[in-house]
Amino acid sequence: MAMQFAERMENLKASEIREILKLTQDPEIISFAGGLPAPELFPVREIEKVAAELIAQDGRKILQYATTEGHVPLRQKIAARMNDKFQTSVGADDILIISGSQQGLDFAGKIFLNEGDVVLCESPSYMGAINAFNAYSPRYIEVPTDEFGIVPEALEQILAATPKVKMIYAIPDFQNPTGRTWPMERRVHFMEIVSKYEIPVIEDNPYGELRYEGEILPSLLSMDKKGLVAFMGTFSKTFCPGLRVGWIAAAPQLLNAFITVKQSADLHTSPLNQQIIDRFMEQYDLDEHVKAINALYGKRRNLIIKTMEENFPDCVTFTRPEGGLFLWVTLPKHVNARDIFMKSIAKKVAFVPGGSFFPNGGNENTLRINYSNMPEEKIVEGIKRLAAVLQEELVGCASV
Amino acid sequence: MAMQFAERMENLKASEIREILKLTQDPEIISFAGGLPAPELFPVREIEKVAAELIAQDGRKILQYATTEGHVPLRQKIAARMNDKFQTSVGADDILIISGSQQGLDFAGKIFLNEGDVVLCESPSYMGAINAFNAYSPRYIEVPTDEFGIVPEALEQILAATPKVKMIYAIPDFQNPTGRTWPMERRVHFMEIVSKYEIPVIEDNPYGELRYEGEILPSLLSMDKKGLVAFMGTFSKTFCPGLRVGWIAAAPQLLNAFITVKQSADLHTSPLNQQIIDRFMEQYDLDEHVKAINALYGKRRNLIIKTMEENFPDCVTFTRPEGGLFLWVTLPKHVNARDIFMKSIAKKVAFVPGGSFFPNGGNENTLRINYSNMPEEKIVEGIKRLAAVLQEELVGCASV
Repeated sequence: MAMQFAERMENLKASEIREILKLTQDPEIISFAGGLPAPELFPVREIEKVAAELIAQDGRKILQYATTEGHVPLRQKIAARMNDKFQTSVGADDILIISGSQQGLDFAGKIFLNEGDVVLCESPSYMGAINAFNAYSPRYIEVPTDEFGIVPEALEQILAATPKVKMIYAIPDFQNPTGRTWPMERRVHFMEIVSKYEIPVIEDNPYGELRYEGEILPSLLSMDKKGLVAFMGTFSKTFCPGLRVGWIAAAPQLLNAFITVKQSADLHTSPLNQQIIDRFMEQYDLDEHVKAINALYGKRRNLIIKTMEENFPDCVTFTRPEGGLFLWVTLPKHVNARDIFMKSIAKKVAFVPGGSFFPNGGNENTLRINYSNMPEEKIVEGIKRLAAVLQEELVGCASV
Repeated sequence: MAMQFAERMENLKASEIREILKLTQDPEIISFAGGLPAPELFPVREIEKVAAELIAQDGRKILQYATTEGHVPLRQKIAARMNDKFQTSVGADDILIISGSQQGLDFAGKIFLNEGDVVLCESPSYMGAINAFNAYSPRYIEVPTDEFGIVPEALEQILAATPKVKMIYAIPDFQNPTGRTWPMERRVHFMEIVSKYEIPVIEDNPYGELRYEGEILPSLLSMDKKGLVAFMGTFSKTFCPGLRVGWIAAAPQLLNAFITVKQSADLHTSPLNQQIIDRFMEQYDLDEHVKAINALYGKRRNLIIKTMEENFPDCVTFTRPEGGLFLWVTLPKHVNARDIFMKSIAKKVAFVPGGSFFPNGGNENTLRINYSNMPEEKIVEGIKRLAAVLQEELVGCASV
C-alpha cells in the first residue's frame, strides 16, 4: 500500500554525503568526502581504562536511567572549558548534554520553525544542518559570504526586508564546507545586527578548538547580551565521534526549550558515554590531546595545499583554512563538480560536490575536500589523481 | 526578550513523571513513581568485561562514526530473537537501531503527523509517547479499553467515522500504565480492522519479554500482511537503560522513512553501546538474564498485590499484570489522585497520578504503580503508607 506520510517527509532526503560514502566503501578509493576524524589519534587505551573503571565502580548507577540535562561534573567541565577557550561566562546550569551536535540542529528546527518560517544561513552552509531543519519545512535565505565569512551588510539588508526570520544558523569557526573563519570585527558586527533585530542564532562550533595557527576567537555566545545564541559543541572532533556526546550552551529561556525537546526526543544521552569523557578529562589532559590532533591536521593541511598548488590547473581556486577539517574548491563557472565527481570515482578518488551545500541550489562548480582522515601518502596520491581529472577537463583554462 | 518559538512548543511540557521524580529524590521516599528496572540485576561485571575487550580489540572502529542503520551483527541477533519470541519473520535489514525506544516514538510522530492529524491510542496510554507526538501537534482520539486491552468494535467505529487518522499507537503487552495484555483474539481482530482501513500502527513493546507466567503472545507485526506495523523494541528493560539502545522493526517502505529521519536527527546510535550488547549476547545468555529479571519482578508483583489486597480499602480496585513493570489503581470516581499524591508525599511514598495518561484529560481517580525498582521490604512499607492515606481519605467507602 502507499503509506501516507507527513508532508515534511518530502523535504527529507538521504544525505548525498551518505550515498557518496557508500560509493567510497571500496577500500581502494582515496576519500576526501567524509568528515571523519583521524582514528589513529583516538585515545583507545585510556578510554578502555576509564570505561572499565567506571562500570566496575559505579555500574548500577551509570547503566540506569539518568537526568535529561546530563551528568553534572561533565557539564561543569564543559562550561569551564568554554569559558577558557571561547570567552563565554557559562556554568553547568547553562549546558545541556545531547547525543552529538547533529541532535542540537534537529532540536533547533523543532523549537523555532513553523512551516514556511525563514532560516538564514551562510551561503554555502553545512548540508547536515539543512537536512535537519528540512524536517520542519522552512524556507532558506542564503546570506552572502566572502573570504571572511558572512557579510554583515548583506545580513542587515535581508533582516530589514524579511518578515518571519526565525533563526540564523552560522558556523563562524572553520566553516563546513569552506573552512573559513569570521574575524573578530565580523563577529562584533554580526552580533550588533542580531541584537538589534533580536533574532535567535544557532552557533555551530564543532571545529573551534582545531586551530593549527593563530588564536581561538571569542564565540558569538560570549558577545550575546540578550540570550539569543544557542552554542552547539561536540566531542566528536576533539575526542571521538562514536560516543555521540555533544552539548548546547544557552541562556535559561532558550536552554529550557532544548531540555523539554530533549526529554520527549530520547529522554537523555547515555550516562556511560558522558562519564567516559568526564573521567578522561579528570585523569588525562584533553588539551594535550587536542594539540596532537592539531599537529597532525596542520601537517595534512600543509601537504594537501602544497600538492594542490603544484598540481591543480591555474583556473581552480581553493581556501587555505587555519583549522578544522575541510577546504573548499571553486572550479570555473561552466564546470559541474558532479561530472568531475563521476570521473574521479573512476580513478578511485572521492570528494563531495559543492552544490548540496546551497539550500536553494546552484553553485555546482564547487566541491568540498576533507583532509583529516587520510594518511599523508594517500593525500598526495589522491590529489594527484583528482588533479589529473581536472587537467583533462579544464584543458587550457586560465583564471576563474 | 520574549523569544518566538514554534507553535508546537506550546504542546510540549516537562513530563509530570520527571517533575515527580525530582520530588522523590529524597532518599527517604519510597517511590512507585518511575519505570526504572532493578539495578541490582544489571550484569555489571559482564558489561565491564565486554566493554574493555571491545575497546581494546576494535577501538579505532568502535569510536568512529558509523552507519545510520546500526551494527549488522546486533541487528541480526535482534531479528532472530524477535522471530523466536514474537513470531515475526524479520531479518537484519528490517531493523534500525535507535537510541532507546522513546526516540522511535518521536520519529513516528515526525514521519506521520501533520498538524491536526489524528492519532488513535488506548485510553489510557503511555504519557511519554503522548509527549513525543505532541511535538507534531496532532489531535488524539482515545480508543476505549477493557480488561483485555483495546476494544476492537470501538476502534472500528472510530475508524469508520474519522478522517485523517494517521496512525494508531498501541502497547499490546503489559501496557504502560495499566499492565494489561491483549489476548490472541484481540490481536487478530485488531489487525483485521487495521488491515481493512490500512492505518499504520506503532506497536510499542518494551516489556513483552518480561512475562512471569503464561506464554509470550505473537506481536502485531507478526500478523501484518501490508507493511503497516512499526515494532519498537528496547534493551532498557531486559538489559539496562543507560546504554540507550532500542530498535524499530518494519517493512522496507516504513523502515526507510525511519532511517531517513534517524540520519537527520542524530546520524546514528553509539557503536560502542550497540556492540556492548551484541558482544554480551555472544558471550552470555540474555535469555537466562531475562529469566532472573522475571523471577524477581514476579516475586515483587506477588508481594505488592498481596499487600494491596490486605491493606487497601475495598472500594479501590487494581489490575493484576502477568508481566511488565506497572499496575493500575482505580479509586472511587469522586477522588482525585493528585490530592492523594500530595498526602502520600507527606508520608514519603510516591506514585504517578493517572490523569496524565489520558491525552484528552479526565479520569483523575486513577494512578500508576511501579513495582520493579523497590526492594521487597520497601514495597510492603510503601504500600502500607499509601493504604493509610487511602483509608483516611476513603472512610467507609464501599465498592466503586
